[in-house]
Amino acid sequence: MCRWIAYLGQPTYIAEFLYDGPRSLCAQAQQSHKAKLGVHGDGGGLGWYGDQKCPGLYRNEGPAWADPNLRELTAQLKAKLFFAHVRASTGAPNTFVNCHPFRMNHWLFMHNGQIGEFGKIQRKLEQALSEDAYAAMQGTTDSELMFGLLVTNGLFNDPEAAIRTTLNSIRAVMLEQGIKDPFRATFAISNGEQIWAVRWSTDVYAPSLYQRDLNGDILLASEPLDSEAQNWQEIPPNSLVCLRRAAGAKTEIEIEELFDEVPHVRAV
Amino acid sequence: MCRWIAYLGQPTYIAEFLYDGPRSLCAQAQQSHKAKLGVHGDGGGLGWYGDQKCPGLYRNEGPAWADPNLRELTAQLKAKLFFAHVRASTGAPNTFVNCHPFRMNHWLFMHNGQIGEFGKIQRKLEQALSEDAYAAMQGTTDSELMFGLLVTNGLFNDPEAAIRTTLNSIRAVMLEQGIKDPFRATFAISNGEQIWAVRWSTDVYAPSLYQRDLNGDILLASEPLDSEAQNWQEIPPNSLVCLRRAAGAKTEIEIEELFDEVPHVRAV
Amino acid sequence: MCRWIAYLGQPTYIAEFLYDGPRSLCAQAQQSHKAKLGVHGDGGGLGWYGDQKCPGLYRNEGPAWADPNLRELTAQLKAKLFFAHVRASTGAPNTFVNCHPFRMNHWLFMHNGQIGEFGKIQRKLEQALSEDAYAAMQGTTDSELMFGLLVTNGLFNDPEAAIRTTLNSIRAVMLEQGIKDPFRATFAISNGEQIWAVRWSTDVYAPSLYQRDLNGDILLASEPLDSEAQNWQEIPPNSLVCLRRAAGAKTEIEIEELFDEVPHVRAV
Amino acid sequence: MCRWIAYLGQPTYIAEFLYDGPRSLCAQAQQSHKAKLGVHGDGGGLGWYGDQKCPGLYRNEGPAWADPNLRELTAQLKAKLFFAHVRASTGAPNTFVNCHPFRMNHWLFMHNGQIGEFGKIQRKLEQALSEDAYAAMQGTTDSELMFGLLVTNGLFNDPEAAIRTTLNSIRAVMLEQGIKDPFRATFAISNGEQIWAVRWSTDVYAPSLYQRDLNGDILLASEPLDSEAQNWQEIPPNSLVCLRRAAGAKTEIEIEELFDEVPHVRAV
Repeated sequence: MCRWIAYLGQPTYIAEFLYDGPRSLCAQAQQSHKAKLGVHGDGGGLGWYGDQKCPGLYRNEGPAWADPNLRELTAQLKAKLFFAHVRASTGAPNTFVNCHPFRMNHWLFMHNGQIGEFGKIQRKLEQALSEDAYAAMQGTTDSELMFGLLVTNGLFNDPEAAIRTTLNSIRAVMLEQGIKDPFRATFAISNGEQIWAVRWSTDVYAPSLYQRDLNGDILLASEPLDSEAQNWQEIPPNSLVCLRRAAGAKTEIEIEELFDEVPHVRAV
Repeated sequence: MCRWIAYLGQPTYIAEFLYDGPRSLCAQAQQSHKAKLGVHGDGGGLGWYGDQKCPGLYRNEGPAWADPNLRELTAQLKAKLFFAHVRASTGAPNTFVNCHPFRMNHWLFMHNGQIGEFGKIQRKLEQALSEDAYAAMQGTTDSELMFGLLVTNGLFNDPEAAIRTTLNSIRAVMLEQGIKDPFRATFAISNGEQIWAVRWSTDVYAPSLYQRDLNGDILLASEPLDSEAQNWQEIPPNSLVCLRRAAGAKTEIEIEELFDEVPHVRAV
Repeated sequence: MCRWIAYLGQPTYIAEFLYDGPRSLCAQAQQSHKAKLGVHGDGGGLGWYGDQKCPGLYRNEGPAWADPNLRELTAQLKAKLFFAHVRASTGAPNTFVNCHPFRMNHWLFMHNGQIGEFGKIQRKLEQALSEDAYAAMQGTTDSELMFGLLVTNGLFNDPEAAIRTTLNSIRAVMLEQGIKDPFRATFAISNGEQIWAVRWSTDVYAPSLYQRDLNGDILLASEPLDSEAQNWQEIPPNSLVCLRRAAGAKTEIEIEELFDEVPHVRAV
Repeated sequence: MCRWIAYLGQPTYIAEFLYDGPRSLCAQAQQSHKAKLGVHGDGGGLGWYGDQKCPGLYRNEGPAWADPNLRELTAQLKAKLFFAHVRASTGAPNTFVNCHPFRMNHWLFMHNGQIGEFGKIQRKLEQALSEDAYAAMQGTTDSELMFGLLVTNGLFNDPEAAIRTTLNSIRAVMLEQGIKDPFRATFAISNGEQIWAVRWSTDVYAPSLYQRDLNGDILLASEPLDSEAQNWQEIPPNSLVCLRRAAGAKTEIEIEELFDEVPHVRAV
């Protein structure tokens, strides 16, 4: 289980969201208020869209709160769209290739959640990867594999359809294998223009997701980054979120139901 | 502030003390019950006396709980005397040379505590180092500097006198500079035969120290390593502890008052 | 391409082979005389059999010559059987899980070589893994995958048959896919009692392998560890080597032809 | 001994100088043509001036050629003035705080060279540091100490005078202590507007320094970054170089004699 933030708005220095205040992402990494695991010290990462189409990626397997390079980098970098992530491993080794965000082509993906009893179906899921997605895998996490399946299922052409197809297909394999542990998935995806985010689970514990409007810029976060709780809106479970921003305009957020039927009801 | 353990007894595998159970040293590193700082993720280290007079040293700046090499090493190594330490930095950078234990000649030192407003007197304290102790410094912590001062003050010849002299001399410099923050020092020293440990502070919050007798082997620890609290005895503040073990005999512990007058009373 | 050494003999300190002299393994890592790549700075590793059936494993993605922990560990550890390895990546990321030796159950494996155009057949080879071998994979190298295939092909029961079957099966897949790049494999395997080693290639450039008898102890090495070339015997290409040591006796080496027909002739 | 490059010119992506071609800085790190030590794998670093007055700093103790984050960062970052450095340790441990460039206030410093028998005079040199410079020290290299002495000697007000004073004062201490090993110093300093560089030694082996004019932008480098040797001009020993760039103009280089008398002649 992890903590993450995603931002779309006016170009802004990244550091403030990671380091300022007692609930910043790196403060949460040391002491989370809402996460299953209190400490997120198994790596940190940043993906940001700068001048180039392809985003930059910074990933380090040590604790983000103690990483001097991440602090330096985010103090210098302004981005209109970035992802930042702190990791608490659910099993995969602490290596930079197992840290979020993941990148394929110019797309980014990061995740908080878990495929229940992943070991039982990892191989089957890998077999479903397209050749390109398989070749792009660098690590061994369930998260990166989910990203590969999203790409396999058409992410680059129709993100919303790919999201629904992928979640359903993973769930189908879990059901087929008799897995009873939940599949929890709160993740974000971007192509550098828009952000798609999902809060979802096959049980009633979909990992939390919040949004805050900062004068026209929008921040998504696993949990509020400051103590002004009234300024944060919880995204309900079973949501598909889309952030867009037209040139010169404010960032817009659209939240729709991800699935008509709630999976954990169907699963009974 | 840190957590540490020190063992003198029959040769035993080290891993159990670091990893077994919900209060092992690495569990404490993630979630301490008695430390000022909850998370000790700024490095871990091990010093052990094996076949050679000079102890082995393993230090890594990442979180000990996630270090596969520390786990491997301690699962293979038996030692009759070892020190293990998890670090929460009070300022010095996370580098392996700033991790405990520290070693000079065949002596080891590790520490939990802090010299208040260290930056104000670091230079003055460094000037008191002997040439040999100065040359042996590798990092920039107040802990390593304390070790250097202990060596300067005759540690290799008369440990108990060196301890008292060093604590007094540091305290004198603090008073001279008008430092009001406390000087807290709970540390362990070994030459491979005996362990000397101190629990002490210039205020009433001497960092905790406990001992447990394990059928004739003795373990010192910042806080109990298991939930059998009744088996752990708290070492009182202002104590100087000495562990000895004659060939074929059980480990013996001796606890005496460190100073006649309690420093925080004198300081008023 | 990598450099490695394997030792079976009287328990001895490991450090001397890694650090002593201008041709030690770590000196070779900085400047090899016989390797395709001059610098082997992409990680180092050690596997050793101590008191326990399962060997210890130390792996670090940084350069072995600059790793203080490897130096400490090998200065303390005596082993009767150990593997040490320095890595020059042929593509897989520098992470500890991609460093040699690899371990499954109580077996070790390390490798110098390369499966030509591995990316083209990685997926097909992975599909051949047994469930257990698949589940044991931690990294993404061709070397670890070879180990998994060896295990799949019965390594734990009949090492020599598993070696021949595995090399033939990989080669068959390469031929089937029209891969013209060579398959070069100079590796070592151990169960803690014996060492099996192979020097082989589908072309005429089988990565080098040497042996030296040290008064009844035997060392295998990618290239001589000292300048006394006359004391080192080159293992010819297409060899299967086996080291054994009865209690109280000297280490014995047996070298036989790996395949009746030399593969690179057959491949024409 | 190390390799470094310094750039002042139109904002440009940094990556090309570090990675493109067989003589890029990271290629030199693996195999230098002109350095005393062939391999520079003991860390790498980057300092760059972006939108803020204070430059960004990225330092990592592993080999620069294998550092995915350095590659990512330099592929995204454009800078008008940057320093990049690959390190071959002359003794100080491989930690990020011992990697170049070093920063105080908004000034950067990096170095290739060595104070002969540094251990003999380290303490004496440290005593000459101003309080501010002493407090800013993070590591234990002779290079960082030189920077501290430069700051102590007025670098922020009069760089050229501070350079001459500092070199003379270090040399005076060496002579006083009877040190016969040379003092070699080829370094660069910047305040974000100008670059000052020195090529100098007390013997005849001043570490090399070259410049290339790239259509009005200027690059300084320990050795040519490409095979077009005719485009690179060697800076002679005993030089003090200054790069300046007026708004809208080309970068200008000025090279003057550092000292009237060549030190290695005086030293006889």
